[in-house]
Amino acid sequence: MATGRRTGRRPGDSGSREAILESARAEFATRGFDGATVRGIAAGAGVDPALVHHFFGTKQGLFVAAMRLPFDPDEFVPRLLAPGVEGLGERLTAFVLQTWESEGGGEAMLAMVRSAVTNEGFAENLRAFMTERALLRVAEALDGPDAPVRAGLAVSQLFGLIVARYVLRIGPLAALPRDEVVARVGPLVQAALAGRMSQSRQT
Amino acid sequence: MATGRRTGRRPGDSGSREAILESARAEFATRGFDGATVRGIAAGAGVDPALVHHFFGTKQGLFVAAMRLPFDPDEFVPRLLAPGVEGLGERLTAFVLQTWESEGGGEAMLAMVRSAVTNEGFAENLRAFMTERALLRVAEALDGPDAPVRAGLAVSQLFGLIVARYVLRIGPLAALPRDEVVARVGPLVQAALAGRMSQSRQT
Repeated sequence: MATGRRTGRRPGDSGSREAILESARAEFATRGFDGATVRGIAAGAGVDPALVHHFFGTKQGLFVAAMRLPFDPDEFVPRLLAPGVEGLGERLTAFVLQTWESEGGGEAMLAMVRSAVTNEGFAENLRAFMTERALLRVAEALDGPDAPVRAGLAVSQLFGLIVARYVLRIGPLAALPRDEVVARVGPLVQAALAGRMSQSRQT
Repeated sequence: MATGRRTGRRPGDSGSREAILESARAEFATRGFDGATVRGIAAGAGVDPALVHHFFGTKQGLFVAAMRLPFDPDEFVPRLLAPGVEGLGERLTAFVLQTWESEGGGEAMLAMVRSAVTNEGFAENLRAFMTERALLRVAEALDGPDAPVRAGLAVSQLFGLIVARYVLRIGPLAALPRDEVVARVGPLVQAALAGRMSQSRQT
């Protein structure tokens, strides 16, 4: 909402947008995802909080933009869950591969992986953000008291796929066509989600 | 070369060698492969940098020596393969967890992960080393022309477990007792090795 105040920059000013993103990165780094506030980030950028909401919607949207995440859980989680739990493993696997192999996606994802692995503060923010916005929402769609563990195991398989195929580029996996990766990894992710294999060790 | 200087410990002093390796593990864990310096590692060990070069040659040689301590494929691969392929997924999973949770093991493994993710040269060395010494040997124990892919998928699951449980410390996985992780992840690794789930999508 236009307030008539003249100290802040105008909406649409790309300088304001950049200033908000810079302030957000500083605030998230200092206070963490939970501790940072839109009001504090706006103050740091010298703009009205309404302008932050105008550009980025929620604090989550701002986090996605500030951390340059190539995906937004508010978009992809409901979309992948919509057809139901069956086939979710394949859809999650295909989504990760598509995101990584899209124009600019791999670069953004690699930057995210590197930051998460080397920067404890960033790892903590990403962990809090992804647990709340993605993992626990997937868990809600599953049955059973161990649903968060099963969702976590599914996520861990996708981490492993990313590291093996794109970061370390382990030969046999890096060379596999995308469809075959989905056909092989998707059912394993689905088995993790369903808890199908647990305790079922052959003797 | 003997320099006659009396301030550092003498070459051949196994205490110095151990002190250098300990300092190296701490430095690599904190700074990653690129950030750590031979000078800093030498200072941490209370020795002259020349002694580090005398024992280990380059920083790379020092890293390989430091990283070999938590696991040596020449030791663990034959041992884990000896009882046969059945149960191999559980044995590999238990081995990774034991290694990470052993005294000093986590620090050494974290240094390895950070370096692999941030340093392309190190990643290349690690990829070549682990593919040849571990992955292809496991593949040899499996049947079928796609054995290397299945071994790669098993390895990728173990990467994912490491990232989720120890690096990002995703709540539900980080909190799980070690035995339960083995009971849940082991069968998934086994399914990857066996190719059991491939193409078996439910409709």
